[in-house]
Amino acid sequence: MLRSHTCGELRLSDVGKNVTLAGWVQTSRDFGGLTFIDLRDRYGLTQLAFNVAINANLAEEARKLGREYVIQVVGIVNERSAKNPKMPTGDVEIVVNEIKILNVSKTPPFTIEDNTDGGDELRMKYRYLDLRRTPVRESIILRHKVAQATRAYLNLEEFIEVETPVLIKSTPEGARDFVVPSRMNAGQFYALPQSPQTFKQLLMVAGFDRYYQIVKCFRDEDLRADRQPEFTQIDCEMSFVERKDILDTFEGLIASLFKTVKGVDIGKLPHMSYADAAKYYGNDKPDTRFEMKFVELKNESEGIPLLGRGKEGEVTFKVFDDAELVVGICAKGCANYTRKQIDELTEFVKRPQIGATGLVYARYNDDGTIKSSVDKFYKEDELKKWIVAFGAEKGDLILLMAGGIDKTRKALSELRLEMGTRLGLRDKNKFSCLWVIDFPLLEYNEEEKRWFAMHHPFTAPWPEDIAKLDDEKTRGEVRANAYDMVINGVEVGGGSIRIFDKELQAKMFGVLGFTPEDAQAQFGFLMNAFEFGAPPHGGIAFGFDRLCSLFGGADSIRDFIAFPKNNSGRDVMIDSPSVIDEKQMKELCIKTTV
Amino acid sequence: MLRSHTCGELRLSDVGKNVTLAGWVQTSRDFGGLTFIDLRDRYGLTQLAFNVAINANLAEEARKLGREYVIQVVGIVNERSAKNPKMPTGDVEIVVNEIKILNVSKTPPFTIEDNTDGGDELRMKYRYLDLRRTPVRESIILRHKVAQATRAYLNLEEFIEVETPVLIKSTPEGARDFVVPSRMNAGQFYALPQSPQTFKQLLMVAGFDRYYQIVKCFRDEDLRADRQPEFTQIDCEMSFVERKDILDTFEGLIASLFKTVKGVDIGKLPHMSYADAAKYYGNDKPDTRFEMKFVELKNESEGIPLLGRGKEGEVTFKVFDDAELVVGICAKGCANYTRKQIDELTEFVKRPQIGATGLVYARYNDDGTIKSSVDKFYKEDELKKWIVAFGAEKGDLILLMAGGIDKTRKALSELRLEMGTRLGLRDKNKFSCLWVIDFPLLEYNEEEKRWFAMHHPFTAPWPEDIAKLDDEKTRGEVRANAYDMVINGVEVGGGSIRIFDKELQAKMFGVLGFTPEDAQAQFGFLMNAFEFGAPPHGGIAFGFDRLCSLFGGADSIRDFIAFPKNNSGRDVMIDSPSVIDEKQMKELCIKTTV
Repeated sequence: MLRSHTCGELRLSDVGKNVTLAGWVQTSRDFGGLTFIDLRDRYGLTQLAFNVAINANLAEEARKLGREYVIQVVGIVNERSAKNPKMPTGDVEIVVNEIKILNVSKTPPFTIEDNTDGGDELRMKYRYLDLRRTPVRESIILRHKVAQATRAYLNLEEFIEVETPVLIKSTPEGARDFVVPSRMNAGQFYALPQSPQTFKQLLMVAGFDRYYQIVKCFRDEDLRADRQPEFTQIDCEMSFVERKDILDTFEGLIASLFKTVKGVDIGKLPHMSYADAAKYYGNDKPDTRFEMKFVELKNESEGIPLLGRGKEGEVTFKVFDDAELVVGICAKGCANYTRKQIDELTEFVKRPQIGATGLVYARYNDDGTIKSSVDKFYKEDELKKWIVAFGAEKGDLILLMAGGIDKTRKALSELRLEMGTRLGLRDKNKFSCLWVIDFPLLEYNEEEKRWFAMHHPFTAPWPEDIAKLDDEKTRGEVRANAYDMVINGVEVGGGSIRIFDKELQAKMFGVLGFTPEDAQAQFGFLMNAFEFGAPPHGGIAFGFDRLCSLFGGADSIRDFIAFPKNNSGRDVMIDSPSVIDEKQMKELCIKTTV
Repeated sequence: MLRSHTCGELRLSDVGKNVTLAGWVQTSRDFGGLTFIDLRDRYGLTQLAFNVAINANLAEEARKLGREYVIQVVGIVNERSAKNPKMPTGDVEIVVNEIKILNVSKTPPFTIEDNTDGGDELRMKYRYLDLRRTPVRESIILRHKVAQATRAYLNLEEFIEVETPVLIKSTPEGARDFVVPSRMNAGQFYALPQSPQTFKQLLMVAGFDRYYQIVKCFRDEDLRADRQPEFTQIDCEMSFVERKDILDTFEGLIASLFKTVKGVDIGKLPHMSYADAAKYYGNDKPDTRFEMKFVELKNESEGIPLLGRGKEGEVTFKVFDDAELVVGICAKGCANYTRKQIDELTEFVKRPQIGATGLVYARYNDDGTIKSSVDKFYKEDELKKWIVAFGAEKGDLILLMAGGIDKTRKALSELRLEMGTRLGLRDKNKFSCLWVIDFPLLEYNEEEKRWFAMHHPFTAPWPEDIAKLDDEKTRGEVRANAYDMVINGVEVGGGSIRIFDKELQAKMFGVLGFTPEDAQAQFGFLMNAFEFGAPPHGGIAFGFDRLCSLFGGADSIRDFIAFPKNNSGRDVMIDSPSVIDEKQMKELCIKTTV
């Protein structure tokens, strides 16, 4: 080794030792006769000391070292007179006797510090320098720890790590596949897996009983912020299980990760039905770090009558009268919001991403009066009913929205999160985990005029709902035996009990609009496998990048990926994708059409 | 869970317990009033007992169960009267009270037994059934264990597991890339990595110090037996190291794997130079489970004179006289080989794959006489010199080949391995590991009339040899600071100390025939990174599939891969690659030309 110790390990007990260190010049401080250099490596920083009075040449050499130079030094560990309690090595310094420059460095295009002056594009172009910064390095090391802790737990639970293939078969169901032309099978293509779904099910058919893999998956989607074309999943599957077994096992995994990585006990996870999540949070991934649950004043489909139409001849509020749903939240202690603040919230919900038409408020003032933006339509005793319904206290602000059920819930959900943020209720160091269960099996797509699987086509319906599959009218009511794990409003994992019967799987493909021939061509291998003794099975997959960013308390997954791509799917560091040789395309029997 | 216990865990101490098991019907044996079923899962087999006298209906039901049916049974653990000491559960059986058929099975196309009647193609088509067979399942479980043990060792050594990208950039150097058309960057392509080489070096530039990954790699090569288009590497890199540090660290890894997985101590690994491996084994991956080292009777380049040209006027053996190299092996105890056996060996070396022109032998008979196929050219006292050179004993057979150095060594290497096999010297349960070091940096390719990197373009030359790079005549003599780990004649891993200096890297690309512009376009990101304080670094990669097959005592890697591809790169189970939609190709801006 070119060092005897790392830059993070020397302590007072090492004083007097002759040591060799190697690393990068972090900073250099010159005090006339004394020069100090902080030498950095992955493990920490160690101060190097040079004294002109002792060795003038060496001190001169040290002074010439630029930032990020790679050097090797030999010297004696010395107790510092001015100790730095913030640094683990802050009690000591190295009185250097020899310097060797292992490599020089140009001045980096941005500072290698926790808060760098580099913008995103520049950081990505020089990612190898960005990764030198402590917060980025720590994020990647956190990812490493989460991976090891995941495997440790699953190994103990008798899961076997199995690698599934990366070069698989393209299927039009689901998101768009990345494809790979095959040279040896001209005109044909492999696809990169969006998930190892069918393979893990085949491993269950094969009797592997418990499988996991931390595995790269690929989706050729238009990238929104924080989506990556390649991403990583913790992918798992179990045989001879019911839902409870899977929820218990993976609740155990997440609890173990929180304990190992964050030192936090998350306790038993509550279950919430998809229907309740929609009704009370407007969202299938509710952020339950804070309450602020929806209260419905009117819901035509459920006959909630708190707001009826006004009597004939009365002045009534048409927006509420015509609405399918009138629903709101109670913002604690916000009655004193100014007109300007409320206007801001109204603008917030009117933004095109949310698309609400307006916002109604009712302040429950400290003096017991109620002041609402719809005063002229509702008398005080009616407004008092609202106060009761919301359980509001003096000083609270009720915010109401109205319209079609789905759209209004979605919009109010955004407002709820915004209020949560404004009220400081979304602390990144607090964790609230739950299971959302009983999703609908199918969603109707109005554009394509057909049913889509909400989860994927292999998800089992609840047995008692299977009969409803046969009737177009009741299909939307069929519940899936599916579950999502939600933490702090983020869906970190999802899965289901699978279909393991060929007939039911064929029926499901039929419902999704596959002809029997298409189903056979694309998924025949799986349906055939079901004929040879497929066991009951189910599983789950966790978004590993997202889970790591959650543990790291970050909003973006990007710093938890060593070499991420930008929003155009480009790696700006290596400048990829790129054009390839004509010769290569000829071998692959393809041509580009641009 | 649909079971209270697995099929592998019940023992005498469980007798009397009411248990629920689930699994596959392995065999059913009918003895009139008694029916026995072996129920199988991943963990083992348990005998189920049905007695007509006790429950006729249930016994009848049991009798109807087909092979590979998936069933759940409830019953009482009972001590067997006829115990089976070969089965861990052989002391007990389950007296069944209830059967539930969880799934039926068609008759499998081959038997689910250790020695199946299924051929390779059939087994691959129904891989999910093949994986039910114990030897295949055990191979995949062994792989799991090797992976866990690898990470355990490297984690302790402070390596960090970092995922590098799968969608990278195509480079024409090396083997052929698989490419992936980019939809968002029309006309451009990603490539799948042949190895994470440049990324792991960038992680060293980033200061990660110690990196590893068990990672899929891809090579679009014409598949020879036992090559897979996607394969897995244990990929590692370290900073601030010299060769010794890497050899020590990874010798430690392999020793730890042997200890954990095989319970074997492999001891300290010997080092052998590439030159010695070539000279004594004809091969850069010598199988050192047995000696049988090459002995040269004549080597014109080294002036080894044991066989000179005959004196003028003498009868001489032209084949030896004209040869650059006359070299042989001594097969212990084979002097009694029959003419037929020797003819077989001659045919063996004359096969086109080996391409030798012939084989000369000399028997050192038990009575002390020497009998050679070239008796008429060499007198007995000359033959006696051979005996001495080979250290042959009475009863041994000397086998000689002659011709150009490289070709002759290669051919004799094959013969040596063949003799090792015939003499039972290549025991799969014996392991002989070594490092082969000091490879040449460059190889000249006569066809393309240019130099190629023997390892890859990032391998550092020995510093004292760098000057030789400038002269075309001495380039072939430049030694690489590279090393391979060889076990039982298989190269299981290889690596090198890397170039970390931009100028030397640029020179290396120049030697390999890159224009400065090409080098910059393809590897500019790495060379630029070297300008910002790249540390000295080096690494290694192990072929994970091969390593697992070695531990498993198998010749083929195929059963150590859950879902392998065949020699045409096809997955015959999922029938991939396949054609894709016109629409998809249009989105990708590509066309096929077939």
